[in-house]
Amino acid sequence: MRGKLSLFLLVPEVIFIILFGVFVQYDEKSGPSPINGTSSEEFHSLYPMFQDVHVMIFVGFGFLMTFLKRYGFGSVGFNLMLAAFVIQWAIIMRGCLDRDDIADGKIDINLESLLNADFACGAVLISFGAVLGVLSPVQLVVMAILEIVCYAVNEFVIISLLQISDIGGSMVIHAFGAYFGLAVSLLHWRKELENHHKEGTVYQSDIFAMIGTLFLFLFWPSFNAAPAAGTFAGERAVINTLYSLSAATVMSFALSSAVDKDGKLSMVHIQNATLAGGVAAGSVANLRVGPLGALIVGASAGALSTVGYKYITPALQRTFKLHDTCGVHNLHGMPGVLSGLAAVVFARYSSNSAFRDMNELESIYPGFKASGFDFQQQANMQIAGLAVTLGISIVGGLLTGLLLRAPFLDKLKSHALFDDDKNWLVDDDDTNTTSGGSGIAMAVIEEPRQDEVKENLDRNSTDGSVGSSLHEQMALAT
Amino acid sequence: MRGKLSLFLLVPEVIFIILFGVFVQYDEKSGPSPINGTSSEEFHSLYPMFQDVHVMIFVGFGFLMTFLKRYGFGSVGFNLMLAAFVIQWAIIMRGCLDRDDIADGKIDINLESLLNADFACGAVLISFGAVLGVLSPVQLVVMAILEIVCYAVNEFVIISLLQISDIGGSMVIHAFGAYFGLAVSLLHWRKELENHHKEGTVYQSDIFAMIGTLFLFLFWPSFNAAPAAGTFAGERAVINTLYSLSAATVMSFALSSAVDKDGKLSMVHIQNATLAGGVAAGSVANLRVGPLGALIVGASAGALSTVGYKYITPALQRTFKLHDTCGVHNLHGMPGVLSGLAAVVFARYSSNSAFRDMNELESIYPGFKASGFDFQQQANMQIAGLAVTLGISIVGGLLTGLLLRAPFLDKLKSHALFDDDKNWLVDDDDTNTTSGGSGIAMAVIEEPRQDEVKENLDRNSTDGSVGSSLHEQMALAT
Amino acid sequence: MRGKLSLFLLVPEVIFIILFGVFVQYDEKSGPSPINGTSSEEFHSLYPMFQDVHVMIFVGFGFLMTFLKRYGFGSVGFNLMLAAFVIQWAIIMRGCLDRDDIADGKIDINLESLLNADFACGAVLISFGAVLGVLSPVQLVVMAILEIVCYAVNEFVIISLLQISDIGGSMVIHAFGAYFGLAVSLLHWRKELENHHKEGTVYQSDIFAMIGTLFLFLFWPSFNAAPAAGTFAGERAVINTLYSLSAATVMSFALSSAVDKDGKLSMVHIQNATLAGGVAAGSVANLRVGPLGALIVGASAGALSTVGYKYITPALQRTFKLHDTCGVHNLHGMPGVLSGLAAVVFARYSSNSAFRDMNELESIYPGFKASGFDFQQQANMQIAGLAVTLGISIVGGLLTGLLLRAPFLDKLKSHALFDDDKNWLVDDDDTNTTSGGSGIAMAVIEEPRQDEVKENLDRNSTDGSVGSSLHEQMALAT
Repeated sequence: MRGKLSLFLLVPEVIFIILFGVFVQYDEKSGPSPINGTSSEEFHSLYPMFQDVHVMIFVGFGFLMTFLKRYGFGSVGFNLMLAAFVIQWAIIMRGCLDRDDIADGKIDINLESLLNADFACGAVLISFGAVLGVLSPVQLVVMAILEIVCYAVNEFVIISLLQISDIGGSMVIHAFGAYFGLAVSLLHWRKELENHHKEGTVYQSDIFAMIGTLFLFLFWPSFNAAPAAGTFAGERAVINTLYSLSAATVMSFALSSAVDKDGKLSMVHIQNATLAGGVAAGSVANLRVGPLGALIVGASAGALSTVGYKYITPALQRTFKLHDTCGVHNLHGMPGVLSGLAAVVFARYSSNSAFRDMNELESIYPGFKASGFDFQQQANMQIAGLAVTLGISIVGGLLTGLLLRAPFLDKLKSHALFDDDKNWLVDDDDTNTTSGGSGIAMAVIEEPRQDEVKENLDRNSTDGSVGSSLHEQMALAT
Repeated sequence: MRGKLSLFLLVPEVIFIILFGVFVQYDEKSGPSPINGTSSEEFHSLYPMFQDVHVMIFVGFGFLMTFLKRYGFGSVGFNLMLAAFVIQWAIIMRGCLDRDDIADGKIDINLESLLNADFACGAVLISFGAVLGVLSPVQLVVMAILEIVCYAVNEFVIISLLQISDIGGSMVIHAFGAYFGLAVSLLHWRKELENHHKEGTVYQSDIFAMIGTLFLFLFWPSFNAAPAAGTFAGERAVINTLYSLSAATVMSFALSSAVDKDGKLSMVHIQNATLAGGVAAGSVANLRVGPLGALIVGASAGALSTVGYKYITPALQRTFKLHDTCGVHNLHGMPGVLSGLAAVVFARYSSNSAFRDMNELESIYPGFKASGFDFQQQANMQIAGLAVTLGISIVGGLLTGLLLRAPFLDKLKSHALFDDDKNWLVDDDDTNTTSGGSGIAMAVIEEPRQDEVKENLDRNSTDGSVGSSLHEQMALAT
Repeated sequence: MRGKLSLFLLVPEVIFIILFGVFVQYDEKSGPSPINGTSSEEFHSLYPMFQDVHVMIFVGFGFLMTFLKRYGFGSVGFNLMLAAFVIQWAIIMRGCLDRDDIADGKIDINLESLLNADFACGAVLISFGAVLGVLSPVQLVVMAILEIVCYAVNEFVIISLLQISDIGGSMVIHAFGAYFGLAVSLLHWRKELENHHKEGTVYQSDIFAMIGTLFLFLFWPSFNAAPAAGTFAGERAVINTLYSLSAATVMSFALSSAVDKDGKLSMVHIQNATLAGGVAAGSVANLRVGPLGALIVGASAGALSTVGYKYITPALQRTFKLHDTCGVHNLHGMPGVLSGLAAVVFARYSSNSAFRDMNELESIYPGFKASGFDFQQQANMQIAGLAVTLGISIVGGLLTGLLLRAPFLDKLKSHALFDDDKNWLVDDDDTNTTSGGSGIAMAVIEEPRQDEVKENLDRNSTDGSVGSSLHEQMALAT
């Protein structure tokens, strides 16, 4: 496989460099001779929120996926690779569909477009979560290229054409990324994904994943507020998102304990369902849903997501042969749709008095000014936007998934699933340092051997009890 | 126990939702039709500092407590649960004692109240540190409910009535949280807490804890400055806190090495005593103590805290049967009192010339304007505030501790102390994946068995040498 | 050794306190009676960027170095110790060379000087990376003291005298820190550093290191932009740095796979070479190099750095007996020089039209106003600055390295290299808790014994195969 991943990264990177050279320029605001001489006040109200989002994309998503016991390098590493790749590609694709950029033949780059590029990364990384450990890095790069095309088209259709409001991207980013990824996953089902012995956690990998959870939890208010940074709607988005997350967290703990036969909590639920409140607040965060509305949306999402992890994901796998490594359907899919529906309901039953003034109304619902919408029409557009998102993501995901089955794209062998050894130099210890450092290293180095044992055990016996397999391993080792 | 934790979370959450619906509203600043049309400049000077504090509460406190080898899920998980819970509850309780909110029958919510809710979380999480691994999650939730009542009362008395100055909450948050938690702990002493074999660290858990330490260290300047964001006093608070922390850190390293017989450093000291500089700066951070004052306060606190971990905590346990898992007495208790006393001294020997102008003086010491205080009177109030804090926290903690002994609150059994297995699905590996992944998993899964061995060894022999117990375990395993 | 580290920390700390008391004062802006009554707008545009830099110094550098399997405490701990120490010492040393401060005999402290103190920490921590695990903490403290003297002199010469532009400190911080550290390392070569059995990683230590990588990656735009916070040049610095990093990351993945015989990725490259884009952007980040220029600089640096890790570092060790634990030559040295050269080229071929206006030009190249420079002269100064930096860092490093060989500075014994046990209480488990907690603990506690085994094996046999040494260990254990 040497060279294939290099090729699939180098060729696009060279193309990016050429396209950036020809088409991309600093926005007047950061270049010389500005058209308007305004100061950079917008920059300073946005920059801290942008950095929060940036942390979510690289640390939040990256570490959230480190829960797998032997896919930590891949989780945090491919997350970085994909994000660094997409942050360039999204600038180009989004520019191709931007009216101003088309008009002057140049793609303007500024802090706002960096923020939107980060959002595009979010969608790809959500899809990555659905197929974590299942696709090879070459497949992931191809998926990212195609997904960003679909993403930019969907964003253009629902935001620019349908003029929906979706400040936190619950539709544009979360539902889109989840259903795209699930559609890809559907076409990469294989028997070995049922109870794969490497698809599990160890104690410390679950703690690593909490780093991701917490930074996502903490900065989600910035995620949902950043596009409205500097406005009162942005302040509301912070408050609504924070309380939606809080309610979702309490509900996740309550239900996680309730659905277990011994009342024990599951780290999977705590790592993920707690965050469903952020997704669910996305489409309504800047609206005047009130603290009550925020709590209700968040509590519903937290409950729905926990139930999803416990019952819906296994059922989807059993019924539809749909594997979802990170359970993105529960964290991004269903809560994203829930948020989209909440935005429909709000638009339908809202009135002018729910906005500070006409200015704010027209900034949140630009169709009121541009196309003479009323609330009923806005509600129709919102539901159309949700439908379009689901359509484009699922169809785009299925086509992408089909293409990713092409044999030259490095499909993983069965033993390479959920395992860093295939793609990474796992340098726990080389033979030169066998007994060095720690027992951890000693134990880990045994792994190939253990795997053989495991496979023997799997084939030859149904006795999977701990004591026995341990016994045999020790016997073998000594 | 199934259902009990769920009940203790669901019922309050439903009550929160009802109370939020009835009483809580956006502050005019973030809602429609603002009374004053000012822009959100305050928001943008506060928001980055608020997010720093937010990181401290959820990542800082959460990871600082992951040092225990088998309580990582509980540390970071219950930290999240309590914070998400308290962030709602504190809004209500603080609102009940806010004059403006009482006047119009509505609790206004804005970025400042979110900040104050985070501060309230701080107090609860400090108390959590005192009883980490000792109380069940149900007990923790009940403790949080009661503690916030006491916290809000204490804050109201010393800030609103006594009009003390305590910008970084060294009294309101740190001393209060520490002595409340210690009082609870005093009533939950049990023999097994002496040298419990699970109350220890492993190599990697100590590194996890450093994540908490560092984010607390880094963002403490924001913690102490946030209430004065946008003022010169806030800038001073950043500088004072940063240098107090730096001096405390150097002293912690110096003394940690000095108190060990081999001159070795202890991670406990580095993880905690380094931060005492932040606590000790709290009550004086916005005052003109000078860079010299900041270094002296910090150096004293770092030294005091290190000595506390080495000598005072063991002595308290021996003498008073007072267990303090995280040593909050050293990190929050003593440095908090030290800071309160420093604020007394400053007020007593200060003069108008120590303030930029009368405006600043009256903003830092509002009693000068509202009640005609002079410096002597302010100093008296400061010392009264410290006394009230100690009184309310200790009495409140004792009463809470007593109530938490109620049998239906899920008191932990001895073997469940400091152990995630009681409350969490520890999904290291199920029998299906015995030999999968890594040797780490293999080793961990043995634990229940090892525990039995350990308990046998504990009972039957006094020979605790490594070689021997290891030998027996291996013999047993093979 | 008891007492020696304490002495080397306490004496300087006392001196710092005295010097701060005599010489350091709040800048008028944060003290009382300001000379000018301006508001703190500068504070609020700088503070979020300052905190990003602060995170890079303490979390970024600290965790990046935790990759070693048995030096995690030292990496993150000594990083904290050195940074807290230097943040005080740098204020004094830089003040001694500041014209305004010399003029009035007082060192003014404000947010800008805190930022510059953090930058000085950066240089010391880079040097620390070159000798990670090789120098004792006492040696590190002495190195930090001397390095800051050289750092302040070099900064004064090239910034104040030569008037070069180096916004992100690629010369002042990165190249300086790297070559200083390498010069020190050159004088501390010893035979045992060849393939030392403890200089390796384990699976989880590589994931810990990614925490450092990601926070460095995320906040590098702030690092390069902070000195220009609030200006359009600062916005450009954010964009340029972010895209330089993105291109470097894609190139690092591409080349990491390409240089391995099996096409596997190396965590060393991903942890480090990805960041070379930040270093390489440093000297040109605020210039109008264009998005194209940023991508080219970053892609070159990522490629150069990856190749450096693979081929140049081993060659330097073989040829010059130059050990470089973290490979700072690849991450900070070469990319720093590359950035310095890019700044020469830009200055040489630039013109007035590459700047927004004369104001911006004179702010970026102050020599144009102060000394009547033209672009040719500026280019000459830039190259002179690079030469001076290399000269001062290498000569200063060699002299420091020589001095650090003094016998009373606690040179590490061979078995203490790359090992926390020498300096830290490694409290994995004491005998009291032998079988407690987890198998990890059990394994780790065996270490001293394993080490003996290893050393026996090393001496008595050339058979280092895994199976065999494992066999012998087990036999010994049972």
